Amino acid sequence: MGTTGAPAMKIILASASPRRQALVTRLKIPFEIVAPEYEETHHPDEDPETTCRRLAEEKAGLVARRFPGDLVVGADTIVVLGREVLGKPTDSDDARRMLQALSGQTHLVKTAVALVLLDQKHHSGFIETTKVTFHPLETAEIDRYVALDPPLDKAGAYGIQDLSGIFVKQVNGCYHNVVGLPLARFYMHLKEHGLLPSLLTIKPL
Amino acid sequence: MGTTGAPAMKIILASASPRRQALVTRLKIPFEIVAPEYEETHHPDEDPETTCRRLAEEKAGLVARRFPGDLVVGADTIVVLGREVLGKPTDSDDARRMLQALSGQTHLVKTAVALVLLDQKHHSGFIETTKVTFHPLETAEIDRYVALDPPLDKAGAYGIQDLSGIFVKQVNGCYHNVVGLPLARFYMHLKEHGLLPSLLTIKPL
Repeated sequence: MGTTGAPAMKIILASASPRRQALVTRLKIPFEIVAPEYEETHHPDEDPETTCRRLAEEKAGLVARRFPGDLVVGADTIVVLGREVLGKPTDSDDARRMLQALSGQTHLVKTAVALVLLDQKHHSGFIETTKVTFHPLETAEIDRYVALDPPLDKAGAYGIQDLSGIFVKQVNGCYHNVVGLPLARFYMHLKEHGLLPSLLTIKPL
Repeated sequence: MGTTGAPAMKIILASASPRRQALVTRLKIPFEIVAPEYEETHHPDEDPETTCRRLAEEKAGLVARRFPGDLVVGADTIVVLGREVLGKPTDSDDARRMLQALSGQTHLVKTAVALVLLDQKHHSGFIETTKVTFHPLETAEIDRYVALDPPLDKAGAYGIQDLSGIFVKQVNGCYHNVVGLPLARFYMHLKEHGLLPSLLTIKPL
């Protein structure tokens, strides 16, 4: 194994998010999913970007210990409106409050990605920021969304790939970053760090 | 029928594109699909935006004649790189040529949307433009994409929602417009023109 010049490692996505899984599938490279058993901790004095990076690293690190020969990828996404970080809403009322706050405003979506390949002592990562501008929203539109596509598992109380796509006036930057993983930058990062499995360079037809 | 204050009209999407159908589904309003039987004509002296609007109107108009009491929606998407309009590639070589041209450059994606409700003499529409910047692409990456996700049915030889998502460095504007229908603006247009079916205003939970 691994003696033909092809790296023997696998890519393991350390995330329970079906949206991230769907994005990585798009790369058409084999990967496995191992959701980390993990409780997020929040430190009051830590700034949001640092927390976001730390959570991505912790998720990747936890899974990497079990799979030291594989490339483990962790990610964390936050929504930042002014000085407020919007996490996952606690309930429908909280979701409506967040959407009311986002209405007519521009916010930032940040996804930190951490890559760990323990056996090669490889630790790398990056954070990608996308600007998203919402149309002004009517209360009835918010209510309809929360009723039809409950966003309780989504930071900022919306999933751009669902009904709330109609709330989004403008995206500046990477769209997939808002879904949960900056696909192009992730691919470029793998490439620049020599981490792309040989599987990727398939021969043209 | 139609006497309870609710509009009796249906929305009909006059498009064979599965991507547009998937986008309209996201609105969670009932709609039907009637693909126009249609041969696009191109006039050499017409500027690209005019052609794009005309094709959207012709698609909607053709179907509207059969369904005069319904709101018929037509759309057309073009990719503009400098002075060149990139249509659907004629074959794999043409697709590779287009992708090579898009590599490392910024291009515009324009989708014209036309709405026709013949019985109410309603004709409206708009055109939405999104700027898309590609990473520099290697020939092997282009070859791999064309082999794995043949883009022959897509203007500009890529579908941002498939593997070619990794080519996209930056989107400025509406992402869904690049997929084939500017979802938010379409919804806003329906709303501003009083065309949203009563179905949409569901009661909050």
